[in-house]
Amino acid sequence: MQIKDLAQAARQASYTLSSLPVAERNKALQGIQSALIRYFPQIDRQNQADVRAAEEEKLAGPLLKRLRFDEKKRKDVISGIDSLIALPDPLGKTTLARELTPGLNLYRVSCPIGVIGVIFESRPDALVQIATLCLKSGNAALLKGGREALGTNRLLMQAMQEGAKGILPDGWAALLETRDDVKEMLDQDKWIDLIIPRGSNAFVRYIMDNTRIPVMGHAEGLCHTYVDASADTDQAVKITVDAKTQALAVCNATETLLVHRDIAAAFLPPCADALRAKGVRLLGDAETRKIIACEPAADADWETEYLDAILSIKVVSSVDEAIAHINRFGSHHTDAILARDEKAQQRFLSGVDSAGVYVNCSTRFADGYRYGFGAEVGISTGKLHARGPVGLEGLCTYKYHLIGSGQTVGEAEAGVIRYTHRDL
Amino acid sequence: MQIKDLAQAARQASYTLSSLPVAERNKALQGIQSALIRYFPQIDRQNQADVRAAEEEKLAGPLLKRLRFDEKKRKDVISGIDSLIALPDPLGKTTLARELTPGLNLYRVSCPIGVIGVIFESRPDALVQIATLCLKSGNAALLKGGREALGTNRLLMQAMQEGAKGILPDGWAALLETRDDVKEMLDQDKWIDLIIPRGSNAFVRYIMDNTRIPVMGHAEGLCHTYVDASADTDQAVKITVDAKTQALAVCNATETLLVHRDIAAAFLPPCADALRAKGVRLLGDAETRKIIACEPAADADWETEYLDAILSIKVVSSVDEAIAHINRFGSHHTDAILARDEKAQQRFLSGVDSAGVYVNCSTRFADGYRYGFGAEVGISTGKLHARGPVGLEGLCTYKYHLIGSGQTVGEAEAGVIRYTHRDL
Repeated sequence: MQIKDLAQAARQASYTLSSLPVAERNKALQGIQSALIRYFPQIDRQNQADVRAAEEEKLAGPLLKRLRFDEKKRKDVISGIDSLIALPDPLGKTTLARELTPGLNLYRVSCPIGVIGVIFESRPDALVQIATLCLKSGNAALLKGGREALGTNRLLMQAMQEGAKGILPDGWAALLETRDDVKEMLDQDKWIDLIIPRGSNAFVRYIMDNTRIPVMGHAEGLCHTYVDASADTDQAVKITVDAKTQALAVCNATETLLVHRDIAAAFLPPCADALRAKGVRLLGDAETRKIIACEPAADADWETEYLDAILSIKVVSSVDEAIAHINRFGSHHTDAILARDEKAQQRFLSGVDSAGVYVNCSTRFADGYRYGFGAEVGISTGKLHARGPVGLEGLCTYKYHLIGSGQTVGEAEAGVIRYTHRDL
Repeated sequence: MQIKDLAQAARQASYTLSSLPVAERNKALQGIQSALIRYFPQIDRQNQADVRAAEEEKLAGPLLKRLRFDEKKRKDVISGIDSLIALPDPLGKTTLARELTPGLNLYRVSCPIGVIGVIFESRPDALVQIATLCLKSGNAALLKGGREALGTNRLLMQAMQEGAKGILPDGWAALLETRDDVKEMLDQDKWIDLIIPRGSNAFVRYIMDNTRIPVMGHAEGLCHTYVDASADTDQAVKITVDAKTQALAVCNATETLLVHRDIAAAFLPPCADALRAKGVRLLGDAETRKIIACEPAADADWETEYLDAILSIKVVSSVDEAIAHINRFGSHHTDAILARDEKAQQRFLSGVDSAGVYVNCSTRFADGYRYGFGAEVGISTGKLHARGPVGLEGLCTYKYHLIGSGQTVGEAEAGVIRYTHRDL
């Protein structure tokens, strides 16, 4: 089947999905869960074969770890579906109700976006998570996983299709298999409403530059932690170490540390010790290097997302300088201030132009699960529609229902009927 | 000044604007209002000169009418600013408040988008409306009006700048003057967050195809009215006439009428008479032409936005056929069902994939003023961010504030702290 046909089938399916009551969508989720459990022995064997093949291709360790669909991940997938079923229906929620004139009422009601294309990494569990999130929110989905996971993904998709059969319209979800498929998908702006790419910066940029379909996601995660003059030094060390080292190759890890001049001498030495104990390489500006011994940071460092055990450090003279640095060099993902001074906190919260602006905690909290969204399809650093971790709500849009009893604009213009604009 | 510099100055101004309390923004609106009143005699003279020049260039009647900034429009502009001041602040609204773990609270707070570029038609009143809407919502704006209105617009902008001086940061609004300026603006994706184009289909498509900046708007307004078998015939005639003829060259006028077979013989003859009395030319499919005499509609008619006194008519056999026709040929703008049967209404409301889905009223109601939004910067037929008439709320986005007291993800993973996800 051509991608164009898959996309068109998904569009058709999306019209049925949008009218499907939540009980039916949950029933489909249950069917999918049962089918996955039935398929698990077969999926396990296929996944082991995929892993062996990847080992022979000398795939890097972290990638192999992601590819492995072991018992823990299988359990997580099953309990993830339970959580999703338990979440309230994101559709049909009325977010505005207003009488325009007696007998003519306006309602803004949440509804699915339609057809969503998601391109993700080699984790087979991501396939199930994303497909079920799209389903719960009434969207049809075209899904492209990592090449190495194709065997596992095919079986997962087969199981999901089987589990939802008779409940969902054909075409509710489809698996794309090759890079050429992705290329073709990017041309289907007639049938696809949104593309969510996950992966390397270069990859996300490539997607953004090669489609007319709206793209939601993040190319970069260049997060900052700013230690204000009023910070609690011990707490600031603890949070900085977590923000940099709790995980390295993740978009919400801190890449640049900004330190207020007045606290630098007290904060930097113990912080540097703690970071070095975790194996972090430090790069500092001139003022930092007067306080701690470290390599010099070049201008390019302020715009580098290391995704590694490297941290660039800069001393600043005010919260405003920190905000200006973050707005200029950051990626509008997540940035934190560590401070006891409430004025500094407020200034940072309103001044930093990022999806997540944090006070006295680790940038690593930027995540759909941690926010209680159930799961996320991705994190958005764009400013429109959804920002930050995107869960069920970000997969919905709204439409206006206007319910009348014969009203015309001519009557309104003639003063026969009058606007009341009374919220109901 | 180069457009790039204007855009960069707007970005800088946007950071100040985003932290400006609503009292300050309202004070600026008041200053702008006073300055406009002071400038009106001068603006009036300039506008008369602009109109004379346009007449010499043989500009079409409707365009001349739009260009004229007469006393009525001047009064509307002044009272429009009063309404805007009276509207509640769209910024700083908390739409989610959740304890992630004791002492770590997540808030989703509305904030400005940042820098918005708006390209609009030759109405000078639009310049003031759009600039003040952007200001109230804390956004910086780059504004390009019609060529014919340039003299008037320059003075309007000068008055607004003068009125806001000392309250707003320089660069909060700037006027673009030429098509080359617009071209240059489309390249400033580093500084501009959103483009809102208003104008002809071809123009909006051109904008969409020539920028990496997100675009919000509508290329087409191909609206439908569907008359169900259960409709009240008299009411349906009245609404159809309003939807087609209350204004012609507008995006929310009905262009295609769909009629259920069972009501066609009763409804079409009186409806055709009423429409013809208003000078509407009718084009019908084969079944329509068995009931009323009219020209044949070609396939191309179903996808034509006439913006004129022309209506295409098609007989359908069910509400589902009407929905399928609308989703296939429509522009996802506004579509109405006229029906007494509640099942048919519900099916239509959930099945039609448009920004506005109406029951028993005219498609002409799709408008920010009529919805009670104060004013609109445009109508969006895209599905992301804002749909339908875009007022203050559509010019805002949100960010997540996470307020902690030293929490790390490492502690959460180790079970030292536990997620509660309790809504506050």
